Amino acid sequence: MEHITSRRNETVRAVAALRSASARRKQQAFLCEGARLCADAAESGISIRSFFYTQKALQKYPQYLDTIRQHTAGKEYLLEPSVAQLLADTRNSQEIFCVCAFPNTADTTPESFLHRPAAGACLALEQLQDPANLGTVLRTAEALGINCVLLCGQCCDPFSPKALRGGMGAAFRLPLVHFSSFAAAAPLFHQAGWQTMAAVPDTNAEKVTKVDFSVPVIMAVGNEGNGLLPETVAACSRRVTIPMLGRAESLNASASASILMWEMMRGRGRNNG
Amino acid sequence: MEHITSRRNETVRAVAALRSASARRKQQAFLCEGARLCADAAESGISIRSFFYTQKALQKYPQYLDTIRQHTAGKEYLLEPSVAQLLADTRNSQEIFCVCAFPNTADTTPESFLHRPAAGACLALEQLQDPANLGTVLRTAEALGINCVLLCGQCCDPFSPKALRGGMGAAFRLPLVHFSSFAAAAPLFHQAGWQTMAAVPDTNAEKVTKVDFSVPVIMAVGNEGNGLLPETVAACSRRVTIPMLGRAESLNASASASILMWEMMRGRGRNNG
Repeated sequence: MEHITSRRNETVRAVAALRSASARRKQQAFLCEGARLCADAAESGISIRSFFYTQKALQKYPQYLDTIRQHTAGKEYLLEPSVAQLLADTRNSQEIFCVCAFPNTADTTPESFLHRPAAGACLALEQLQDPANLGTVLRTAEALGINCVLLCGQCCDPFSPKALRGGMGAAFRLPLVHFSSFAAAAPLFHQAGWQTMAAVPDTNAEKVTKVDFSVPVIMAVGNEGNGLLPETVAACSRRVTIPMLGRAESLNASASASILMWEMMRGRGRNNG
Repeated sequence: MEHITSRRNETVRAVAALRSASARRKQQAFLCEGARLCADAAESGISIRSFFYTQKALQKYPQYLDTIRQHTAGKEYLLEPSVAQLLADTRNSQEIFCVCAFPNTADTTPESFLHRPAAGACLALEQLQDPANLGTVLRTAEALGINCVLLCGQCCDPFSPKALRGGMGAAFRLPLVHFSSFAAAAPLFHQAGWQTMAAVPDTNAEKVTKVDFSVPVIMAVGNEGNGLLPETVAACSRRVTIPMLGRAESLNASASASILMWEMMRGRGRNNG
């Protein structure tokens, strides 16, 4: 264990850099904050490169630190509170941090996704902007048993501190695959045996309650303000909608996604038994 | 129209006070911010006591200001930008504000709720803490056609600036009734003909997919961290749960509420036709 007392320490500065998406891409790693979330990463099989805590955290969360230790050979560091501040994203930080490698990167390339036989239910998110929203959607996807989430176009980063917090660790376990364009990938999805569905706020589209979800499905959901790109809607084999009684514009992105995922899994009979 | 140039102006200071819940209770009014939200309040029949805008807003949102004017006899004020700052809750304020009276207060007392014959589907929220969450839930409730939302115990204020923003104006139209304790009111709900259901994360509870929602139902949903109070669960006639495949703790309060409301309305056949 190494004790870091200076805010200029190079190790800490490299770790603090992970708060930016470009540094995460470069280092192929992310920073995880909080006793429970760090222990969750460890138990989910995420490779922990190093971990950091203050004296206060050592006293307050000994079991969580033990869990982390049991699952990693990574180096550990004791930080002074002023140094821990450099890593903290929350106001009342628990002062426990892990540097984690991105999960299963080989299994979640677009190529590997397209080479596997189509099976189950996937959600595709297009250009989602709000990390807290993304976290919530991933958390719901995991809870409902969605098999995989495709992040399409310029989505915010699921490994940002805010998205990780909102996601309660879902990103550690749920396969996430990046596609630069849903529309461009759609013919390949179809070739691989997927049905693609565009979720649209259009009363003329098929009602989600009437759709057969027993086939392998990718449901595409758009972003908070603008919905799906027109080319994505055009590229999908079907258009589905959530029938509403009130104002159509009144479902936000994560509420829509929750209901759509619920219907996908409900229709599969897996939540129905 | 009066022009306010001083940040010490008494009218503005009284309006700025409405950012606190206690001032809202005392004045029986709330502050609404943003061109669209203010126009929405006006069109929803909310009584607008006065409204405020800057020169910039006057140029940028003339139609919205016209809408407000058409629906109110309230006084209007032109503010200097530095004065508008005192009222703004957002970083990039649109610099349009309305002081609004609470909606339909006579129809939404606990007594009037209990005197009406039970009919339709209500959601009861207990001790919800996060205003953005509350806003989202109200927005979803309106979209799905929930008839009324009961706010039980120490819930955050649906008329706070954050809750209003998240709710996209749902609080203007959706009847909201406050009960100091769900458990204490439950016998009265039953007497009035309501079925009460406690949403619990318990695999032994009735699956929400198996519940008959054709009767008048109040579904009670707990807060973000702790769920429902034990006495509330005990007071309800039934316990229902959302069947999940993933981690049970992984549905957050607003995702749970979305799915439960969806099932209530789906089961009613109203979203199914």
